[in-house]
Amino acid sequence: MILTVTLNTALDLTYRIRSLRPHTSHRVSEVGERPGGKGVNVARVLAALGHEVTVTGFAGGGTGQAVRDRLAGTPGLTDALVPVAGSTRRTIAVVDELTGDTTQLNEPGPQIAPPEWGAFIDRYEELLPTASAVALCGSLPPGVPVGAYANLVRAARAHGVPVLLDTSGEPLRRGVAARPDLIKPNADELAELTGSHEPLRATQDALRRGAHAVVASLGAQGLLAFTSEGRWRATPPARVHGNPTGAGDSAVAGLLSGLVEQLPWPDRLTRAVALSAATVRAPAAGEFDHGAYQDLQGRVAVTQEAGAA
Amino acid sequence: MILTVTLNTALDLTYRIRSLRPHTSHRVSEVGERPGGKGVNVARVLAALGHEVTVTGFAGGGTGQAVRDRLAGTPGLTDALVPVAGSTRRTIAVVDELTGDTTQLNEPGPQIAPPEWGAFIDRYEELLPTASAVALCGSLPPGVPVGAYANLVRAARAHGVPVLLDTSGEPLRRGVAARPDLIKPNADELAELTGSHEPLRATQDALRRGAHAVVASLGAQGLLAFTSEGRWRATPPARVHGNPTGAGDSAVAGLLSGLVEQLPWPDRLTRAVALSAATVRAPAAGEFDHGAYQDLQGRVAVTQEAGAA
Repeated sequence: MILTVTLNTALDLTYRIRSLRPHTSHRVSEVGERPGGKGVNVARVLAALGHEVTVTGFAGGGTGQAVRDRLAGTPGLTDALVPVAGSTRRTIAVVDELTGDTTQLNEPGPQIAPPEWGAFIDRYEELLPTASAVALCGSLPPGVPVGAYANLVRAARAHGVPVLLDTSGEPLRRGVAARPDLIKPNADELAELTGSHEPLRATQDALRRGAHAVVASLGAQGLLAFTSEGRWRATPPARVHGNPTGAGDSAVAGLLSGLVEQLPWPDRLTRAVALSAATVRAPAAGEFDHGAYQDLQGRVAVTQEAGAA
Repeated sequence: MILTVTLNTALDLTYRIRSLRPHTSHRVSEVGERPGGKGVNVARVLAALGHEVTVTGFAGGGTGQAVRDRLAGTPGLTDALVPVAGSTRRTIAVVDELTGDTTQLNEPGPQIAPPEWGAFIDRYEELLPTASAVALCGSLPPGVPVGAYANLVRAARAHGVPVLLDTSGEPLRRGVAARPDLIKPNADELAELTGSHEPLRATQDALRRGAHAVVASLGAQGLLAFTSEGRWRATPPARVHGNPTGAGDSAVAGLLSGLVEQLPWPDRLTRAVALSAATVRAPAAGEFDHGAYQDLQGRVAVTQEAGAA
């Protein structure tokens, strides 16, 4: 199975309203509710691609129960979340019906006590021996040490399990130094990590900091991949319109599934770009349009980048 | 006991953020969570005043469970909510830390099926014989007939239980015609009911429509009461600064407690105005400041209004 780690799981709510006007009252016309957090999103896409996937991380309170109830209904997905005393956070996407513009409100997440963090480490160590790959995704809830991902990367490598890290800020900086197999920063995360806003230079710098491979997601410009086997740029056929929520998580699922299927790098990148664009096109945030995915797979351009591998 | 009815109970969330900027992402620094809906708020204030109070209405889903868990911890308050298949709504008050301005997002509430409405009617009829007064408060969730409050008013009157109605729009219009003992509209609700923006004329008109007494809440100008015993205006000593959320519900609790204690009308109005102002002054929305309440009780001005009773 593929293991995804979401330390800060979420109950993702989508509110449709006419138009957000600060300091007034709004009637929500439609409420959407689904389990979230980056690793949970990655797991859902992997399951939809036919992979067996196990979700771990933390869940607590009524919101955590709502997350678990909904995960239980997803075929191919196993819930190995660790219970905590605090409540799983909510995230709220407030969508203006008139324009489709979205305003995001994110709760910080529960305080994780040291014994809860210890219980998670035990669960993670139990799961690693049967994992074909692991993805470490998203922000850290309060109470989890900032070097957490570095430790989880090292544990995966000690078990010989390929590990992908998708986070930002100081947890990314520390995690990279532990030499993960792959990181997938977006342009902002890459610039924050390296201090450079120039993608080629920043991607090269991220490799130097310890990542074995770097796939930078550059929005409409697709993916830029620096790996030990070569350097590529993969771009969608045209600018894709829609809701970009979850597009990065779908790219991670594409890369991870390609890794465990031992696809050549250009095929992994094609899959990641096609899944990502098909997610932007789907009407519901974070879902992907299966028809668009099939269609886009034949139309992603992968070109080699100059420079030694 | 005093019975309060909240057909559209809520889990009231308060989010503190730096400043709301539409179409951007916000980190919530603090999350408040408490049971809500107007009748629940009224019940909490009544319980704090030392009254035995029973809460009925609907609760369902994880949010309904969160409401019930929290009600269970309130001394003097009995939970007689009727379970439903749908989920109790959330309301979200997004408070800007810089200015204190609030943006409100209200979910519509669960769809109530006809058998659920029937189960509620049965519970209500069971509770009425031991009630000293009943308050019918707030909006109707989807599926509840628009004439619901008119039926509940008639049932209370058939049992000889004094009934206060605090709602708006068509449910208020129909409810008034069933001759409740008291309604407590604010200026907007009164204008919507009567078509008049002139408080004296509108209050007189509301009496003609069937209410035995009308107490109009006019914000900083206090309360205007037209009753069979006389007409009064009750005003707080000075403009009160703070958060007006729940001030109307505290006024209802003041009126209701004064009714069951058989206080003279001027004393009921004094209590209602003092509780209302003490709620505006409390730091947490919907709570009241007990010290301010004691202090304000001696400083509310009640004057007789001209015109025959």
